[in-house]
Amino acid sequence: MQELKDLIRSEGKYLGDGILKIDAILNHQMDPNLIKRMGETIADMFRDEKPTRILTAEVSGIAPALMTALALDVPIVYARKHKPVTMYGPIFLETAPSHTKGGETFLMVAAEFLKPGERILIVDDFLASGKTILALCRMVQQAGCELVGVATVVEKIFEGGRDKLERLYGARVESLAPIAYLDNEKIVFDDDPKGIEV
Amino acid sequence: MQELKDLIRSEGKYLGDGILKIDAILNHQMDPNLIKRMGETIADMFRDEKPTRILTAEVSGIAPALMTALALDVPIVYARKHKPVTMYGPIFLETAPSHTKGGETFLMVAAEFLKPGERILIVDDFLASGKTILALCRMVQQAGCELVGVATVVEKIFEGGRDKLERLYGARVESLAPIAYLDNEKIVFDDDPKGIEV
Repeated sequence: MQELKDLIRSEGKYLGDGILKIDAILNHQMDPNLIKRMGETIADMFRDEKPTRILTAEVSGIAPALMTALALDVPIVYARKHKPVTMYGPIFLETAPSHTKGGETFLMVAAEFLKPGERILIVDDFLASGKTILALCRMVQQAGCELVGVATVVEKIFEGGRDKLERLYGARVESLAPIAYLDNEKIVFDDDPKGIEV
Repeated sequence: MQELKDLIRSEGKYLGDGILKIDAILNHQMDPNLIKRMGETIADMFRDEKPTRILTAEVSGIAPALMTALALDVPIVYARKHKPVTMYGPIFLETAPSHTKGGETFLMVAAEFLKPGERILIVDDFLASGKTILALCRMVQQAGCELVGVATVVEKIFEGGRDKLERLYGARVESLAPIAYLDNEKIVFDDDPKGIEV
């Protein structure tokens, strides 16, 4: 998605240690029309797989996942990281180490919103080492659903998440801005090996 | 918003202690078209106030706030409750006691996304005692922005948040489903004093 790549080049900031700051685009401030176009682009990629539900994780996955769900006209459920008092009854619980916050993150989805036989498209903001999305995949499997694919806004290919998702779940993985390489001077997208100085 | 009230009556569950569970509608699973209609309804209520930015708080405020921002074609910023490593530079930090999770919640917005002179519409999922939204109002004030109003999806009028927002900030408050009374047998909306057995 060229528009997004251009924005990441102009607004994104590399903080070192593999951390890309795109708070002005996705993780704090958002342009709702851009997020809508992201959702439409993801929907177009996976429409033929006939997903019946979008699964994401709070917090920053919600916006692109909601817009994907809107474009596909299917419900969305977002995994909670902190159990609210309104969550009761059987749940699927997985844990994943958090890259940007440290420690271990819980992911919880009520069983009533992940029923056997559903065709699940996972949508999230970032794919790096894949730990959060792998936890969501384990839930999809436990729930007896079918995983039709994984879509992320930004992918840091060099962190290997895609390989694990393909190998462990046979997942089709698509990302709107796949980053091959990242350093203090350059953000190099996968399909643009020369990169652009930032 | 009649459609929403009907859904709350059919899908909502009163858990006691003032807690209304609408996880099937807003706080866990969502119908993206319903959320879009919520956003459009809120946008219609406040369009004449010419908001330049939507402010909400993660997690459950994001979806209705994003759809409001889409309908108004303005950016949205969501207050973070946990500081991600990508957040640096000056921030506005407020605290609010959490009703559904216990303890104290932090709310953080980077100063770069809340600039003096902006016309802010606060959108959130629930208005109860108003503690979260009052914290957002304090941020708006500190930032030198103008508060054009507060819109919430569900309001529990009997918890008094509206009174505080009006008294302390002169805020115009609108809610899509204002609940006057809630007990094990009934959810009574403000404009329908007879209520409906649930």
